Amino acid sequence: MRNINEHTITEAVLRGMAGCESERLKEVMSALVRHLHDFAREVKLSEAEWEAGIRFLTATGQKCDDKRQEFILLSDTLGLSTLVVAQNHPVSTQATEATVFGPFYVEGAPQLPQGADISGGAAGEPLFVRATVHGPKGEAVADATVNVWQADSEGLYDVQRSALESAQGRALFRTDAQGRLDFRSKLPVPYPIPTDGPVGGMLKALERHPWRPAHVHFMIEAPDYQTLITHVFRDGDTYLDSDAVYGVRSSLVGDFRAHPAGSQAPDGSTAAQAFYTLDFDFVLERASG
Amino acid sequence: MRNINEHTITEAVLRGMAGCESERLKEVMSALVRHLHDFAREVKLSEAEWEAGIRFLTATGQKCDDKRQEFILLSDTLGLSTLVVAQNHPVSTQATEATVFGPFYVEGAPQLPQGADISGGAAGEPLFVRATVHGPKGEAVADATVNVWQADSEGLYDVQRSALESAQGRALFRTDAQGRLDFRSKLPVPYPIPTDGPVGGMLKALERHPWRPAHVHFMIEAPDYQTLITHVFRDGDTYLDSDAVYGVRSSLVGDFRAHPAGSQAPDGSTAAQAFYTLDFDFVLERASG
Repeated sequence: MRNINEHTITEAVLRGMAGCESERLKEVMSALVRHLHDFAREVKLSEAEWEAGIRFLTATGQKCDDKRQEFILLSDTLGLSTLVVAQNHPVSTQATEATVFGPFYVEGAPQLPQGADISGGAAGEPLFVRATVHGPKGEAVADATVNVWQADSEGLYDVQRSALESAQGRALFRTDAQGRLDFRSKLPVPYPIPTDGPVGGMLKALERHPWRPAHVHFMIEAPDYQTLITHVFRDGDTYLDSDAVYGVRSSLVGDFRAHPAGSQAPDGSTAAQAFYTLDFDFVLERASG
Repeated sequence: MRNINEHTITEAVLRGMAGCESERLKEVMSALVRHLHDFAREVKLSEAEWEAGIRFLTATGQKCDDKRQEFILLSDTLGLSTLVVAQNHPVSTQATEATVFGPFYVEGAPQLPQGADISGGAAGEPLFVRATVHGPKGEAVADATVNVWQADSEGLYDVQRSALESAQGRALFRTDAQGRLDFRSKLPVPYPIPTDGPVGGMLKALERHPWRPAHVHFMIEAPDYQTLITHVFRDGDTYLDSDAVYGVRSSLVGDFRAHPAGSQAPDGSTAAQAFYTLDFDFVLERASG
């Protein structure tokens, strides 16, 4: 294994994995090395470009902390996240489609009761969400755990506001006996993904816009069902056809209906200001086996 | 651009780069996206494996600091560094071969005079290095800048010893009017690359050993010549044929000659203890253009 050149290196690295006992790890790492090497040979990557790549990846890792996940953002903007979600969740005629997880989920969201307002004081136009969670045969999924997270009316998630000490636009609910979940929030707006890090620099260099159409994230977990990680997008949004992370599915575009001031709100009150309602039915797949 | 699946995602991401004004950036990033997507489809990467990849890359970035470059170590151990060096430095019949840069170079090494001892107090068997730097026609390259760095007799570079405040086994020299460089050091020994980070975990999972054969690093720069980044390896080393970073070239294996105590050392003294000598001639390529 001396005098390896740009052609013989690939076989040398693959041979070095021969002793690996995990067949799957060997398969994944072998394919990774083959494709990585094919890429570098195809473009005849220069040493300066290799150095730029090392610097980029290092900066991406160093931008991550407990509230920021720049590598997920990189995966999202390069389309890898959508690819992985799509190939692991074939479109079903009955179940709600999955989409990307995104970089803004954090564990430990406050558990709130049905009907609660998740906005935590954030400004914006009132939104009443009335969701249901069903199984594939129409059965209600009671007591499902539902994580909800969304940006505020300035397009920022709570974790992007360093001065903020409590959750905004983020909560954990349980569906009721009929699989229902009602809560209040603020109308989501389109927003640019964070552009102050390496991924923002990459988008700028590629002359790509950083915008995502307005949406609310949902992660729904229940025993005997597959976990559903998805968004509901707002109909009519400018960026539905150019989402910076390629996450839009037509079936996930919800009807965010506008109601004028003076209308009766879902909670029975007469609304002093205009508000929106969203009704959405989530259908889970049964867990296999 | 809605309802993208694992097959249509690639074209969607490539179309998004259409506006990029740098043709080379577009070429490199398009190839990167194609190969990254091909990899994920080929192995049908699962969501759990994707998450493990995100965690691995994040940890790799966070292991980096001003003295530790875990992404270079990753590139080295996956053979990418050797591939890039090899394809940018075709083997010449006359010039010294290049090899990997490695993760342990740091800027600002102390500039020392000819004949100096670079070991900085590190333990080990004495080594006298007598090098020359020539151009392709045999002309001496005077006043070349030569960075030298190597591990100590315990296999550690100075930057791996957090308690150490000054350089050990690291120096910057200038060749003399005849292109000569003489210095003293300690005999290099084989060592494992750092295994306390994500790359060490990867090697362990793949059941690959982390050892590199003993070597001294050289980076030689001179006006009108191409910069040479290389090692001189120690002949007879156990790991010459299984270098963890695939860097060994036969032409870079040097004759580290042993001399018994009582022999005359290159500095004219009678050596009280056994010592080694290394004579090595470096030949630089002319800069093109």
